[in-house]
Amino acid sequence: MSLGENWFSEPAQGHAMSLEINQKLHEEKSPHQTIAIYETNTFGRLMTLNGLTMLTSRDNFIYHEMLSHPALFNHPNPKDVAIVGGGDCGTLKEVLKHETVKSVTQIELDERVTRLSEQYFPDLCESNSDPRASFVFEYAISWMQHAEPNSLDMIIIDASDPAGQAKRIFKESFYRDCLNALREGGVVVAQSESPLLDLKKIVDLRTEMQKADYAEIQTIQFPVASYPSGWWTATLARKGQKFGDFREQMARHKSFDTKYYNADIHKACSALPQFMQDAF
Amino acid sequence: MSLGENWFSEPAQGHAMSLEINQKLHEEKSPHQTIAIYETNTFGRLMTLNGLTMLTSRDNFIYHEMLSHPALFNHPNPKDVAIVGGGDCGTLKEVLKHETVKSVTQIELDERVTRLSEQYFPDLCESNSDPRASFVFEYAISWMQHAEPNSLDMIIIDASDPAGQAKRIFKESFYRDCLNALREGGVVVAQSESPLLDLKKIVDLRTEMQKADYAEIQTIQFPVASYPSGWWTATLARKGQKFGDFREQMARHKSFDTKYYNADIHKACSALPQFMQDAF
Repeated sequence: MSLGENWFSEPAQGHAMSLEINQKLHEEKSPHQTIAIYETNTFGRLMTLNGLTMLTSRDNFIYHEMLSHPALFNHPNPKDVAIVGGGDCGTLKEVLKHETVKSVTQIELDERVTRLSEQYFPDLCESNSDPRASFVFEYAISWMQHAEPNSLDMIIIDASDPAGQAKRIFKESFYRDCLNALREGGVVVAQSESPLLDLKKIVDLRTEMQKADYAEIQTIQFPVASYPSGWWTATLARKGQKFGDFREQMARHKSFDTKYYNADIHKACSALPQFMQDAF
Repeated sequence: MSLGENWFSEPAQGHAMSLEINQKLHEEKSPHQTIAIYETNTFGRLMTLNGLTMLTSRDNFIYHEMLSHPALFNHPNPKDVAIVGGGDCGTLKEVLKHETVKSVTQIELDERVTRLSEQYFPDLCESNSDPRASFVFEYAISWMQHAEPNSLDMIIIDASDPAGQAKRIFKESFYRDCLNALREGGVVVAQSESPLLDLKKIVDLRTEMQKADYAEIQTIQFPVASYPSGWWTATLARKGQKFGDFREQMARHKSFDTKYYNADIHKACSALPQFMQDAF
């Protein structure tokens, strides 16, 4: 059957994810992009940027938890964190659940994304007034070029797909700047697209990270129903040291709730399908 | 954007997966259902039954491998296997890769599904002439009621979603018949829907299996881009014994190729997200 007019669709490479829309709640052209917010019938609220799904209320927890907790529990004592992009503040909320974390700087280009998230996704923004959080609205590329060397334990790249401006966030020179900003043992983690639709992009990202001289690179996988193909990855790289063991006991007895992440998932998420192992 | 007329869409609970169609290759009403076959733009061929995606050339390998190899490597020496449904023969092909397997009986109601698969998905049917394979075209429910007790090591339920007739395949009485047909230590494995969209169906299936007195039940997860939400499960149950260790060395050094499954994935696929652990 074909879908009626009341569906939002994101076609990608001959495949599309669609959500049935109840109502458009908001649409605006910010200086950077068109931002739209919808009430869907069964996935809660949906935010799109230039017609691409950014998040839904129903399934963003998987993406935000998996971009945060595996990297954070892979580090022995993450204190100072930067988030690149992440304007909806869902990643920020997860990071701030960690008591080791003393500061988080979120570098999002488009302030309107954050303001609209505060308005339409208040649960994602519930930690925005945490005194450890600070917000910078500018290009992350230049912010990272000028970041103080050896000042961060973790950099989380929660950015758009590698197209247009965002392409530079997938390149060696950016990961070199991240490397300089990281302390020894620090970890950078980036959302890295769909294994089924974008395998070459993942391979390319890993190559760029390798060129930037990280000690080890690790790709993890998880489902995200509202993203193309419903299957997504993040890629982690560590400065100066291999990943070694994660803080399993802390992950098993963590002081906060998660809906997707747990210690078993942590161990499992880095197991890669044969075709990905072959490609890497 | 909304999708044009040349897309096949499967809406499910306010969410839809769609594939761009190049050409409809075939459509017929068999005695049991409407079967359609399309050439898609990027997912190879697509078979639908009553408008629901059965498989695509591009991503069926994940589903078929995950329905077969985890269960088969969980068993110390699977010799005699029954497949319930599975008319496209993709599961059969994976099962026959195992040298321990001496016989496989496929009980598919609709012979036309198998004949059309032979015609349009020849790679899935390349082992159909293996002398260990036999084909029965009848109701699996009655076949299982009359199956010889203690005659099977493995039963793989590769059937439609639990609606209409297929509902009975998700019920205690069917799993009791399977239990009787299985030898001690035998394993039944059933496709068990999407964790995000159908959590209650998975819980219900596990309950029905529990009522039928299996010694242990285990749900595994994997991605299937062309199924609703892109995320799927299978649920395994074992007669008389807990699962214990799988044949890891055999899985690591298996004599055949796979594209998704490997020993790392085997260990990882039973790690469940927190919301699933909580629900079980």
